[in-house]
Amino acid sequence: MSNELKVTFQPSGRTVYVLPGTLLLEAAGRAGIVLQTPCGGRGTCGKCRVRIAQGDCGPAEGEGHGRSRALAKQGFRLACQAHVTSPLVVGIPAESLFEATEQILTDDSGNAAALHPVVRKVFFELSPPSAEDPRSDAIRLMHAVGDVEIPYNILQKLPGFLRANSWQGTAVIVSDRLAAVEVGNTSQDSYGIAIDLGTTTIVATLFDLVRGTSRAIASSMNPQVGFGDDVIARISRIRENHGALAELQQSVLKALNGLIQSLTEEARVPARQIYEVVVAGNSTMQQTLCGLDPSALGEVPFVQVLERPLSLPAAQLGLAVNPGADLFVFPQVGGFVGGDTVAGILAARMDQASEPMLLVDIGTNGEIVLAHNGGMEATSTAAGPAFEGARIVQGMRATAGAIEKVIIADDVVVNVIGNAKPMGLCGTALIDAVAELLRCGVIDETGRIVPPDEAPEALPFRLRRRLTPVDGETHFLLVAAEGSASGEPIYLWQKDVRELQLATGAIRAGINILLRRAGLEPAQLGRVLLAGAFGNFIRRSNARRIGLLPQIPCGRIHFIGNAASLGAKLALLAAEERERATGFTEKVTHVDLSLDPEFQMEFGMSMIFPSGDVDSCAEGDAGADRRGEEHP
Amino acid sequence: MSNELKVTFQPSGRTVYVLPGTLLLEAAGRAGIVLQTPCGGRGTCGKCRVRIAQGDCGPAEGEGHGRSRALAKQGFRLACQAHVTSPLVVGIPAESLFEATEQILTDDSGNAAALHPVVRKVFFELSPPSAEDPRSDAIRLMHAVGDVEIPYNILQKLPGFLRANSWQGTAVIVSDRLAAVEVGNTSQDSYGIAIDLGTTTIVATLFDLVRGTSRAIASSMNPQVGFGDDVIARISRIRENHGALAELQQSVLKALNGLIQSLTEEARVPARQIYEVVVAGNSTMQQTLCGLDPSALGEVPFVQVLERPLSLPAAQLGLAVNPGADLFVFPQVGGFVGGDTVAGILAARMDQASEPMLLVDIGTNGEIVLAHNGGMEATSTAAGPAFEGARIVQGMRATAGAIEKVIIADDVVVNVIGNAKPMGLCGTALIDAVAELLRCGVIDETGRIVPPDEAPEALPFRLRRRLTPVDGETHFLLVAAEGSASGEPIYLWQKDVRELQLATGAIRAGINILLRRAGLEPAQLGRVLLAGAFGNFIRRSNARRIGLLPQIPCGRIHFIGNAASLGAKLALLAAEERERATGFTEKVTHVDLSLDPEFQMEFGMSMIFPSGDVDSCAEGDAGADRRGEEHP
Repeated sequence: MSNELKVTFQPSGRTVYVLPGTLLLEAAGRAGIVLQTPCGGRGTCGKCRVRIAQGDCGPAEGEGHGRSRALAKQGFRLACQAHVTSPLVVGIPAESLFEATEQILTDDSGNAAALHPVVRKVFFELSPPSAEDPRSDAIRLMHAVGDVEIPYNILQKLPGFLRANSWQGTAVIVSDRLAAVEVGNTSQDSYGIAIDLGTTTIVATLFDLVRGTSRAIASSMNPQVGFGDDVIARISRIRENHGALAELQQSVLKALNGLIQSLTEEARVPARQIYEVVVAGNSTMQQTLCGLDPSALGEVPFVQVLERPLSLPAAQLGLAVNPGADLFVFPQVGGFVGGDTVAGILAARMDQASEPMLLVDIGTNGEIVLAHNGGMEATSTAAGPAFEGARIVQGMRATAGAIEKVIIADDVVVNVIGNAKPMGLCGTALIDAVAELLRCGVIDETGRIVPPDEAPEALPFRLRRRLTPVDGETHFLLVAAEGSASGEPIYLWQKDVRELQLATGAIRAGINILLRRAGLEPAQLGRVLLAGAFGNFIRRSNARRIGLLPQIPCGRIHFIGNAASLGAKLALLAAEERERATGFTEKVTHVDLSLDPEFQMEFGMSMIFPSGDVDSCAEGDAGADRRGEEHP
Repeated sequence: MSNELKVTFQPSGRTVYVLPGTLLLEAAGRAGIVLQTPCGGRGTCGKCRVRIAQGDCGPAEGEGHGRSRALAKQGFRLACQAHVTSPLVVGIPAESLFEATEQILTDDSGNAAALHPVVRKVFFELSPPSAEDPRSDAIRLMHAVGDVEIPYNILQKLPGFLRANSWQGTAVIVSDRLAAVEVGNTSQDSYGIAIDLGTTTIVATLFDLVRGTSRAIASSMNPQVGFGDDVIARISRIRENHGALAELQQSVLKALNGLIQSLTEEARVPARQIYEVVVAGNSTMQQTLCGLDPSALGEVPFVQVLERPLSLPAAQLGLAVNPGADLFVFPQVGGFVGGDTVAGILAARMDQASEPMLLVDIGTNGEIVLAHNGGMEATSTAAGPAFEGARIVQGMRATAGAIEKVIIADDVVVNVIGNAKPMGLCGTALIDAVAELLRCGVIDETGRIVPPDEAPEALPFRLRRRLTPVDGETHFLLVAAEGSASGEPIYLWQKDVRELQLATGAIRAGINILLRRAGLEPAQLGRVLLAGAFGNFIRRSNARRIGLLPQIPCGRIHFIGNAASLGAKLALLAAEERERATGFTEKVTHVDLSLDPEFQMEFGMSMIFPSGDVDSCAEGDAGADRRGEEHP
């Protein structure tokens, strides 16, 4: 584990430690930086180009001719082709970022499109009233800034404000409502926050709404985890305890205020210049944030309070932002398919898909959306927390000390987050371990870890000795006692494989049912988009090996990062985007898996691991995938 | 004064005391009951028919044939023709009332039209969610009651409400916003209040919004009088004292809550079933009620905060009504021409005038509106409080003990409100006294009360001896010491005539300027509408004698009662009415008299009383006017 290499990304300064040979694209992803890869990482589009500022990183094959050669001489590399072979400092050009701003500010042809937040600030200089022009204060203002709704508390301040400030000032307009009037010309100081409100994690990004640039990003645990790991536990809590809804709401509001404080301190922006907060979260998260009782989500038929988007007075709800600011909460599809899925569809532009397209957002809940024939179907499935390291005997979240990657050839190689001794394994490592052990025959199709005497004859000795029979089951030693942080050995337990089978089966069953309803074969899918903080770090071939994803070429599988967060950003930065979201949401069909007569059968079948042949990818890029992701 | 006759009106039970010979129409007016007189009181339309329940009141000439004869036998009389000659109990049929409900519920042809308040209550019975129908709570409700905006505090209550009440209840919808959900079927219990918010007096009427009927009426002094008699004084107070606006706002809110309590107690209606309050008042009253600083109305060019109508959260403002109720505040024209004038235009349907029409609303401020050629011009003029008995040496408001009528022939006859000994004189008595003394030559055109030696030779002895010279001026004795409540004599003072000249001149100058701008002669006016609590009791020929109204036949002069209150009621009872008001308000031209170069000259000329010949009315009904109003 001592051979990890430090990679620092600029301008953010984020640092990760990766095994030698890791693709730069993957290293960036682990640092939370999602690069553009419209070509699917084949090295053909040139969109993921980064600059090596320090360290040695030779150009990959194919980077040595034409424009690429010239750029390579200046230190530019394609992140999808270049491998980390030494400690690096890597500069990320803004245009390589797969960012909301990028998507908005340029269209598919790369042309500039409009930044158009619902927050507008207009500096006004009014002529004072005169005998010839006795218009009222409000009408005088509206003739300068446009026709707006003026809430009465602002109207009350207006006459005094105008006269105290020589009839000048800045109007803050949020969705055609006058949210504030400010002294002087503050029209260049306008901020908003996009929030991905996850069951476990909250990610908030502060945006400059005038320039369309991200100014700070902050994340924290969702303190609601104290009330239960998953949404079902939290809903149960609310159903049992009258005051729990208010407690859950207050706890998440407190967390949001903490994030707002972090963001404003980091960016040195006053909180009163934040005029809109956009939130995308699952149904339960959105409803508890708004104080909307999610009890009906706790029983069949899983009813929401409202599917439409909400605009709430942010300050009244308790958020420490401008008193006139709005809280925009994403529209929802139905049941557990909430605003995060809608935001994901928006970010992935699935509503504009020209070929069958699948979105899989992997978290404690898995959300699956299939676009085809101009329509969309969406479902939600309880994957459970295994992907997040919970319910795994020696599992942990993907933080420092977590094994996040497992490679098995002659022996076991693991990569640990934070260049530390391993403490346990996180979700990606679980997938890696099971996929690798399936490949070498140590785990069979039913998920059983075979005892040493049933292991394939060709199994290398160093692997065979790791098989540890206990009480009629077999566990697999990942890290020996002397290599671990605690001094205790770290195993992949038989029980862990069962948990993974449950999680995988739930998602795969959802995918299969959506495909069947649409009459599609997996091979007809033009693209499969993997989203979610977790989805971002899964190795595609391993995900496919364990049957989490259908048998399609790895080149058609794309990581789109935190799609919910990206969708929230889009909605914050462009009114048209949220109108689009509101428009297409009504047309998304919600599929309730619990009502599908085939779900139980499908679920059971999906828990069986695929037979080994799916590993042989049909397309050329699969090699790159294997090479980049699995071979150090 | 002992010869007054008691007249009680049913079903309201209101009682007044009037001199023998008083027209029933006038007696009703004094009781605050405005009857319909579309024919102008000529006895031709039959709309003001009332029924004599007790007492003797013979049919007038012309009431003895045809349908009238049959009705007369049943005790029906035309109030515009019948005179009080004995104590009476008079029944007022609903169809004779000049009431908002009448105007709304029947159109000009007497056909029923729609009662259509913005408050709707809809009883709903929803099917509970099922696997086949998993719609969200809010969408489920909207499919039953129509698409509404649901404020988040209602949305928060909705899931619990629906499940606790078997998916049944009543939705309260105010202007397409869900204002409340109520247990059970309360769809028949819906109330609103229309308020005429005057500088001096507040009148509030409680309406049943399901049936369109008035349930209770209450009035009180505007407690803001403690801050100043007129709007200018109150504005000055606010300009000088930072906290005064809040004080003025709170004082009027307290008064409104007192009225709401009276109304709900009288009608036995819970205040939580009041879902809308509609207010019409002058600019200063409306703005202080809403907490909108009227300081800019205290200096040229008299600027309002907003001309558009306002919908405010009534409970948030502090009104003790349903927490989801709206406060609707009338649109305004500009300067001092406020919501009361707009309400008056609405009530008088001046926006639909087919001939030149003049509205004069007489109060502390006089508002004048001229409709012609499809357009309207409006102005406001400071008449001062003389019409309300203030600034008159022995003046008082029109309450018990006030002389409200003065008739002068061989001697002086006065009528006192409440059948008491007189304490002073109110505005109508002031007009009467001056008009009568002009007729008999005791007051000359310049307003001077002549000394005894300059009085006409034909002046009866009993009048001549009332002329009382003091310090070079002459006063006129109205009531001798032994006849007054205080034991002190009551005079018409020379100074009082000057105050009346100022008040009359201001209004008449406004009328003249509007007519001149329109290129109209007074004779071209098809109708002159007199409005205001005061206007209701003025004797038309006397108002014309002192020059308050132009020289047009009395038959074209109509009392329309409290037009502001009537307009507020219309807006409460029919959404279309308030839309009409909002629509035409933008088209009313505001004429600022202070900017008119001719105003000072016109004002000065209007203070000169007309020469005597105007008294000879050109149309036949003038006789009735004189007979009914002036000769007991």
